[in-house]
Amino acid sequence: MKLMNAKGTRDFLPEDKIVRQGIVDDLRVIFERYGFSPLETPLLERFDVLSAKYAGGSEILKETFKLKDQGGRDLALRYDLTVPFSRVIAMNKQLRFPFKRYQIGRVFRDGPIKLGRTREFWQCDVDIVGAKTMLADAEMVAIASDFFAKVGIDVVVKVNSRKVLDAIMDEAKVPKKKWVDAILTLDKLEKIGEKGVMKEFVEKGIDGVEILKLVRSVDLKLKNDEGLKELKDLEKFLTLMGVKNFQIDYSLARGLSYYTGTVFEAVCKEFSGSLAGGGRYDNMIGDFLGNGEYPAVGISFGLEPIFEILKKGVKKTVTELYVVPINCLDECLPLVQDLRAKGVKVDLDFKGKNISKNLDYVNKMGIPFALIVGTDELKSKKFSLKNMSTGEEKKLSVSGILKELKSGCIHC
Amino acid sequence: MKLMNAKGTRDFLPEDKIVRQGIVDDLRVIFERYGFSPLETPLLERFDVLSAKYAGGSEILKETFKLKDQGGRDLALRYDLTVPFSRVIAMNKQLRFPFKRYQIGRVFRDGPIKLGRTREFWQCDVDIVGAKTMLADAEMVAIASDFFAKVGIDVVVKVNSRKVLDAIMDEAKVPKKKWVDAILTLDKLEKIGEKGVMKEFVEKGIDGVEILKLVRSVDLKLKNDEGLKELKDLEKFLTLMGVKNFQIDYSLARGLSYYTGTVFEAVCKEFSGSLAGGGRYDNMIGDFLGNGEYPAVGISFGLEPIFEILKKGVKKTVTELYVVPINCLDECLPLVQDLRAKGVKVDLDFKGKNISKNLDYVNKMGIPFALIVGTDELKSKKFSLKNMSTGEEKKLSVSGILKELKSGCIHC
Repeated sequence: MKLMNAKGTRDFLPEDKIVRQGIVDDLRVIFERYGFSPLETPLLERFDVLSAKYAGGSEILKETFKLKDQGGRDLALRYDLTVPFSRVIAMNKQLRFPFKRYQIGRVFRDGPIKLGRTREFWQCDVDIVGAKTMLADAEMVAIASDFFAKVGIDVVVKVNSRKVLDAIMDEAKVPKKKWVDAILTLDKLEKIGEKGVMKEFVEKGIDGVEILKLVRSVDLKLKNDEGLKELKDLEKFLTLMGVKNFQIDYSLARGLSYYTGTVFEAVCKEFSGSLAGGGRYDNMIGDFLGNGEYPAVGISFGLEPIFEILKKGVKKTVTELYVVPINCLDECLPLVQDLRAKGVKVDLDFKGKNISKNLDYVNKMGIPFALIVGTDELKSKKFSLKNMSTGEEKKLSVSGILKELKSGCIHC
Repeated sequence: MKLMNAKGTRDFLPEDKIVRQGIVDDLRVIFERYGFSPLETPLLERFDVLSAKYAGGSEILKETFKLKDQGGRDLALRYDLTVPFSRVIAMNKQLRFPFKRYQIGRVFRDGPIKLGRTREFWQCDVDIVGAKTMLADAEMVAIASDFFAKVGIDVVVKVNSRKVLDAIMDEAKVPKKKWVDAILTLDKLEKIGEKGVMKEFVEKGIDGVEILKLVRSVDLKLKNDEGLKELKDLEKFLTLMGVKNFQIDYSLARGLSYYTGTVFEAVCKEFSGSLAGGGRYDNMIGDFLGNGEYPAVGISFGLEPIFEILKKGVKKTVTELYVVPINCLDECLPLVQDLRAKGVKVDLDFKGKNISKNLDYVNKMGIPFALIVGTDELKSKKFSLKNMSTGEEKKLSVSGILKELKSGCIHC
């Protein structure tokens, strides 16, 4: 047997996992600041739930991993976090609305393996159910803006409304049965440009000239202006909230999805696809559950593209201080435990290797500081702290070490 | 279709997930202080890897969820984190030893559903590979001691060595082929008492009198004293590290597992099973990989029993401050964003409900503070902060609010 990963899956060694965990932690911090609470649902779901009408649709079912339990029940691995979320809402009548939740976890799709696509990947979703106000939508855009500022990726959040798109189609006199086709083509404007879009319009027998003229209007006016009013409202809230890096883009549609109102998408220069995307889906949960009205809006962050941008892999360990005992391992242990109790991430040489071998290891692992400890140092309680990036060495007490780590530590 | 969970799985609503996430965060903090770095492996593994000789064994394979991908490949959901960890070690020759990693994630077992047993549950593993010194084993016990102190569960970590158990069997002249049987019975001493154990010994045709006499010795002496020497060494390191709540228990075996040396188990009064357990398994990885020597020691924390002890479910949301705007929603938004930017978890009333309805909501959700904001408050920049547990109301500036939240906040 050759040891290998299942096709379309991969491992993340510490240097990668540290970056991924950092992204997830930053998302949690931002989500929680906006009052969103965490939810956990199982990875295993009943196949009848995942394949219900209004759930994923036939396309996604082709990519769903199916299995049976020992009782012969048909199960499947979840392909997104939205269907399980809808199920939770249906099954928990005690929930109070607006219900603000986030969920971060793995989903599975047994699809073709292309560059950067895996069969097991993470979704990071944040949604509000039970609020019609555009303030809810504004919180989604603000969360994206805050998060990307925190991790240092320069994004623009494009916003639009499906209602505006429908009104544009109406205004451009596109026959109703061709609206979906026309919107799907228009959605590619950023990617394939005006020429490419016009070519597709011609192929589809759609008169695209008027559509593009409307989309490009500086001050778009439409007879049916519900969508435009909503966008104005969204803009007002975002401005009050101090969010600046958003941009209205009347061509944005976010594919053939269940969106009914606003749509948004965070894009940046470093990556061709979107880093986060979402919108308002006022009908989906109600349709899925077959009863009630559940206005909803959400945004989903793609851990995989964000990771691809942020990964540097310089740190192979979380350790921030590596203790090198010189013939005094036992005597070092109270010091090591003291530093750990004070919150420092400490590792130490178990094996009594010499200083140069130890420093070589510390360097290769990307650990920022080394502490050389001999019996003299233990007596005087002053230790040699070596800053691995500057090469500088200082004699310091425990409190001096703590101060130095705080000021120079790349983890803090 | 009735909406329901897959059998043996469950959802965790925010009130539960907040507690579970807190446990995982605390584990991470402690693991990282000891220099352990995170690893992520897929949930999907090749079935041939999980069913390899020396991997899980036939018992666990009966409970393994199997499935196929679209290419007809045999896959399975991982039943533990140790086999995937061994695979990662085999496939990454560049890893440096000792390799200290932790991994927290879900595993799957398609077993019978008993009280508290689910088919999808979390394991939290921390292991060192490539270190023979008892200091590695001592770090496992110290981690358990630190973690349970942090979450406020009063545990004792029992320690023993399989080598001591073997030497006791030898000394008590138990025929070698009955050692495993005798050790399994002895392992139940805590649970079923001396009488129960003696009864089992008799049924199994084992002379248990000498075994129990040795196990109960105050100062056990054995001809083959390798295990005892290791325990002495472990004790020395733990004492140097300031760990006090451990206890040597010569009857502890940790079942029929792959342990070769030390074994340990954290127990407490509130729960009959163990909350964490582990030991040294010097042969398993090498046997599994079919080459090389990989001394290893680890401990696994059970999220489920720890959660059962810690869950209180008083907080239904992460929100720590709920803003109630009195006819000034728009004007409130800069204040709300300012508080969020300063790290406060803030939610607000979207719908313009009256104060008493809002306070009722804040109360039911377990949110610790409410902030009542009218136009006067916005002008004077002094806001009414209501502490929901004391009922006290104070007029405070933003910096006063931050101070008050820090002192009174149950989340901090």
